[in-house]
Amino acid sequence: MMSASDWSEASGKYRRGLLEDTVPFWLEHAIDKEHGGFVSCLDQSGVWLDDDKSGWVQGRFTWLLSRLYATVDQKDEWYQAAEHGIRFMRRSGFRSDGRMWFQLDREGRGVRIRRYAYTEFFAAMAFGEWARISGDEEAGEEALRLFRLACEDMRGGRGPAKHEPLRQGKALGVPMITLGVAHALEDSIGGDGVAEERARAIEELRNEFLQPDGALLEQVGPEGPQLDRLEGRHLNPGHAIEASWFLMEEARRRDHPGLISDAIRVMDAAWELGWDEKHGGLLSLVDVTGGPVQEPWAELKYWWPHCEAIIALLYAARATGEQRHVDRWTLVSEWAHEHFPDPDSGEWFGYLRRDGSVMNTAKGNLWKGPFHVPRMQLMAAELCEYLAGAEAE
Amino acid sequence: MMSASDWSEASGKYRRGLLEDTVPFWLEHAIDKEHGGFVSCLDQSGVWLDDDKSGWVQGRFTWLLSRLYATVDQKDEWYQAAEHGIRFMRRSGFRSDGRMWFQLDREGRGVRIRRYAYTEFFAAMAFGEWARISGDEEAGEEALRLFRLACEDMRGGRGPAKHEPLRQGKALGVPMITLGVAHALEDSIGGDGVAEERARAIEELRNEFLQPDGALLEQVGPEGPQLDRLEGRHLNPGHAIEASWFLMEEARRRDHPGLISDAIRVMDAAWELGWDEKHGGLLSLVDVTGGPVQEPWAELKYWWPHCEAIIALLYAARATGEQRHVDRWTLVSEWAHEHFPDPDSGEWFGYLRRDGSVMNTAKGNLWKGPFHVPRMQLMAAELCEYLAGAEAE
Repeated sequence: MMSASDWSEASGKYRRGLLEDTVPFWLEHAIDKEHGGFVSCLDQSGVWLDDDKSGWVQGRFTWLLSRLYATVDQKDEWYQAAEHGIRFMRRSGFRSDGRMWFQLDREGRGVRIRRYAYTEFFAAMAFGEWARISGDEEAGEEALRLFRLACEDMRGGRGPAKHEPLRQGKALGVPMITLGVAHALEDSIGGDGVAEERARAIEELRNEFLQPDGALLEQVGPEGPQLDRLEGRHLNPGHAIEASWFLMEEARRRDHPGLISDAIRVMDAAWELGWDEKHGGLLSLVDVTGGPVQEPWAELKYWWPHCEAIIALLYAARATGEQRHVDRWTLVSEWAHEHFPDPDSGEWFGYLRRDGSVMNTAKGNLWKGPFHVPRMQLMAAELCEYLAGAEAE
Repeated sequence: MMSASDWSEASGKYRRGLLEDTVPFWLEHAIDKEHGGFVSCLDQSGVWLDDDKSGWVQGRFTWLLSRLYATVDQKDEWYQAAEHGIRFMRRSGFRSDGRMWFQLDREGRGVRIRRYAYTEFFAAMAFGEWARISGDEEAGEEALRLFRLACEDMRGGRGPAKHEPLRQGKALGVPMITLGVAHALEDSIGGDGVAEERARAIEELRNEFLQPDGALLEQVGPEGPQLDRLEGRHLNPGHAIEASWFLMEEARRRDHPGLISDAIRVMDAAWELGWDEKHGGLLSLVDVTGGPVQEPWAELKYWWPHCEAIIALLYAARATGEQRHVDRWTLVSEWAHEHFPDPDSGEWFGYLRRDGSVMNTAKGNLWKGPFHVPRMQLMAAELCEYLAGAEAE
């Protein structure tokens, strides 16, 4: 059982990780003072392995810095670095049709656009949060434009699909990120412009991806689940768990009947399929029927599902008060902190073997940047503080 | 030192693997008697995990069966199964523009086309070898048409590249497969129609991909190597080793000055970077400067590089008579046979962890089918037989 002071202590630990380790690591190594923006392909100690820039990381780090400024402390360093990100995105982030580069070179020239509009979603979060701290109204309008563009493009606005109509699937990632970004924009620029897409995303998650046994499938077909297909049987525990806390956050904001219980079912099923009883930690991809998974990364332990599980289990503890969520939170938070942090150069390693040993010493790439770890530290600190208060009452 | 009878014994072992294990496994489990073609998504015992069909596997298995019929034994079962593959490809393999499906459903409806023309290359091998054993002249013409289409499409004939011109790379896979398929067609339908592309591929391999230290890079830019980029530093030991025996095969067919020594340098460099001194076996992807590699499969031990290394080292032993190639062949062949074969259901597992333990029990998927293992067994049996003869002289 956690006492109020146990929760306070846990909160302080997450907060120190955020403010004394993660954020300083990225501020020190990622900022390109010469050409603007952020470089995220970093080796263990922060040296650049490649100076191409990630569209995702520009948006995510700018969002994080602005959010810290808005909710934690009005530190000038964070404001300046957020402005540095906004300036680079405005100067170089966009193609002439208003879509954003997934990858850019150091000077800011576009290297690659992708079919998926995740870059635009993360940039929407960044521009929205920047509008909140700077009062820049154009940034708020840009955030909404990007959110709408991304929703449209994710429904097929970006040219021919990879698969023929016969086998076109819907990916869980789409309603999931729509819901998460809708909440971020609600906090920064207000929720009016995102309400319709948010409602639609919740509907899809509950009515199309959620199965009777709680499995939140990674992909469904136009006619429903495709359990006779390899990909149709995939469940990504990290995605399902992240979606579960997005649903709990929705329930905190607006009361939908049954939303909390749906979210808890999603998390329970993902935990039961994804927690590795042998070595601890969360697997990256499983087959809901227990069959072999083709993807070579399926059994690896990635940093981000552990971050999402820490957040989701604290949400569940807050929403239900049930001890089993606290027990699982203890398990995953301890396992993550024993295996991911780098004692030598700080921050977290991203990629562990199934047995928990470090497989790749790089601190970042075009995907891993300052997002899942610091967002978890920020939110877990807040959630533990809340639980400390609840316990003290 | 290997005596003539040691080599004969080795030859017999490979041949028994081919004829008593690998080929029967796929003949038993892969043939779809109802809808035609081959299903390759098989679990450990051969049960179908998914009944979608692979364009690669249709071509590769049809080629193998025809090649066995042409060069090993005129078994009716092989002829029938090859015809079964040809019939399915002719009926369902092609899109209306003459390009081929990468993935089809069980009934033969197209599910996915890819930007890369590997399916067409493997089908060219199949149609050519089928023309040889059946006397079907149209099949020979189809083989040549597919080879030319694939060469053209690999140079950008299939629509916009993924990357902007600024960062467009050339992939090693393209000249490599061009050379390999050119040799296959030379054997089946004659080499006149493929000579120009073959010469061009050899030129590219030697002048663009091969580095002064023997590293055969996985990707180069339009201006040469891009060693300041993560991907520009990649070397795929399996690819480099496979390319090295394609070059030695070219030298066997036609004498180019220096070709054998270039091929040996490629193999030596790939071995030195790729052989895992800690656990044995070949790594899947390395950074030529020794840096961390982002791809999560980099350290895994895949079946096919080991097959290619067995072939390449026997070629090197034949071409040079040097003992060190025999020593390395012994090492990799023993490691492979200790770790990949499935003692319970036959055939080979495909995916091992770095420590050599089995990561995935499936016998096949859209990529792994009856190709690298049986081709190796067929060629290694022939090469060992040749070496037995040379030793006996």
